[in-house]
Amino acid sequence: MAAPLSEFEMIARLFAPIAGEGALGLIDDAAMFQPCPGYDLVLSVDALVENVHFFAQDPPGSIARKTLRVNLSDLAAKGARPRGFLLSLGRGPRQDDDWMAEFAAGLAADSRACAMPLLGGDTVRTNQAFFSVTVFGEVPAGRMVKRQGGATGDFLYVSGTIGDAALGLQLRLRPDAAWAVALLPAHRDFLLDRYLQPQPRLVLAEALHIHASAGMDISDGLVGDANKLAVHLGHRVEIEAVPLSPAARAAIALDPALLETILTGGDDYEILAAIPPARVSDFEAACRVANVPVTRIGVLSGAGDAKIWLDPTGKQAHFSQNSYRHF
Amino acid sequence: MAAPLSEFEMIARLFAPIAGEGALGLIDDAAMFQPCPGYDLVLSVDALVENVHFFAQDPPGSIARKTLRVNLSDLAAKGARPRGFLLSLGRGPRQDDDWMAEFAAGLAADSRACAMPLLGGDTVRTNQAFFSVTVFGEVPAGRMVKRQGGATGDFLYVSGTIGDAALGLQLRLRPDAAWAVALLPAHRDFLLDRYLQPQPRLVLAEALHIHASAGMDISDGLVGDANKLAVHLGHRVEIEAVPLSPAARAAIALDPALLETILTGGDDYEILAAIPPARVSDFEAACRVANVPVTRIGVLSGAGDAKIWLDPTGKQAHFSQNSYRHF
Repeated sequence: MAAPLSEFEMIARLFAPIAGEGALGLIDDAAMFQPCPGYDLVLSVDALVENVHFFAQDPPGSIARKTLRVNLSDLAAKGARPRGFLLSLGRGPRQDDDWMAEFAAGLAADSRACAMPLLGGDTVRTNQAFFSVTVFGEVPAGRMVKRQGGATGDFLYVSGTIGDAALGLQLRLRPDAAWAVALLPAHRDFLLDRYLQPQPRLVLAEALHIHASAGMDISDGLVGDANKLAVHLGHRVEIEAVPLSPAARAAIALDPALLETILTGGDDYEILAAIPPARVSDFEAACRVANVPVTRIGVLSGAGDAKIWLDPTGKQAHFSQNSYRHF
Repeated sequence: MAAPLSEFEMIARLFAPIAGEGALGLIDDAAMFQPCPGYDLVLSVDALVENVHFFAQDPPGSIARKTLRVNLSDLAAKGARPRGFLLSLGRGPRQDDDWMAEFAAGLAADSRACAMPLLGGDTVRTNQAFFSVTVFGEVPAGRMVKRQGGATGDFLYVSGTIGDAALGLQLRLRPDAAWAVALLPAHRDFLLDRYLQPQPRLVLAEALHIHASAGMDISDGLVGDANKLAVHLGHRVEIEAVPLSPAARAAIALDPALLETILTGGDDYEILAAIPPARVSDFEAACRVANVPVTRIGVLSGAGDAKIWLDPTGKQAHFSQNSYRHF
């Protein structure tokens, strides 16, 4: 049996191949980055913790990709193109060399796919593994899409379908629930995969910085996140307009109470954006070109802090839990 | 007794006051940063873990400052001026609201002192606290001081004094050692403080990017770090030239074996730099202006991978442990 890799060997073998030019081979104390003139930088950091944000027994490559993708999703929502990332890695007792090799392979695949090199990092020992990624991207100067940039009358759009990942998580936590057992295997696999592998909407970044007045990624549940985006202006959202996958529709048919899980559950990593009426047709056209479905679900109402969720009968819906909270 | 702060309240009360303009009040998903034209960015990330890099019972403000300072030390060594930082924070069971308030106060003090605002972050729950800071700074384009930029004949300099923090750590780990008990209280306090509160040499950044051919901060022990800086060129260092504090000299007088701890122990956060002979007098003058003592300890020898540590008798010294390793 081979001796375990030292920190230096691990960096050289597993991470140096993912490193970009400015990383200086990951043997320096810092990375160098030359910003493009005329662009602002967009920076985001998100950490995933073992048994909090992922299951210890998940495939290491999936954990690596999720760690990167939750950050890429932030960049996409802000209209930014990824340029690089730094990784702060806490290795726990489960993260042996084989585990780390699979983790690095997952990281490498997504890093290549996004042309986003690793620029630097730090590795430490801990009892509970964590992976903290700092991503940075670029957006034309002054064009970063802010969370609260919208105006009264702007329409609210979401990308893709909502709630799949939240249902996927429920399938992990309570596989014996009646609806979980009754669900078609294909639907179950789809929902599980949506939880495990977010698909950040990077191809929408340009459409967003050109057309959106406000935007964010949906990570803590549509209800809580839409309420944040509309915190000052208020909104009116039609629940029936919220786009659902066939798998999510099948789940609701089996257990109508799952609608609340879908709307408040989190981990969607879809885009929520406000689009001014004059921009709607160009935005929709740009999304068609990018081949990402987007759906209009409501409007920024201008009614102060009133966040109205209308059910199909036109009555106002209330939720027992607005959104997922880490604390 | 007041209810514990939610994540959102904690961010609003404790961290938003430290936030800079580009942080958008810490209510957005990402931060925005406008780079200065004609400058490169320098990026570094370092994580500190409870009971690995700091003692759980250390004052939270000290832990906050150390977390920032180990990163600032990297920027200083690269010749960069700090511009901002992001914090990824894993809160353990010990980190209650009072603890977090003290932590934030320490962070705020150093953030103000360095004119380096908080730009973003993430807070998660974990069993073992961690604090991962990503700093970024700016250096005139093309002037970042690299670790392996030196040439044969360049002189090796260190700032300040070496080994104080390593002795401070030993005082924490083995307070009953004979030398620890015999040490003057003032010397003991000095060494303990040097371990707890690194003093990053930010005021040397300009002198370094103007004059140094290579540089790094000394974090893993002078011996290991100098051997890294000289990995391809080789070096010859005179151990007697290594600058020691009166406290460190007193410790060695009590226990000569501590010299190895001093040279290999780590946590110095002083600068190690290579200065071409033609630059020596201007570099020394710039350091005098900055009011930071620097000492010439050796030379890049050009002798391939030979790393020579000469003891006072002119014999080559060997060390049982080259440097601190995290793994």
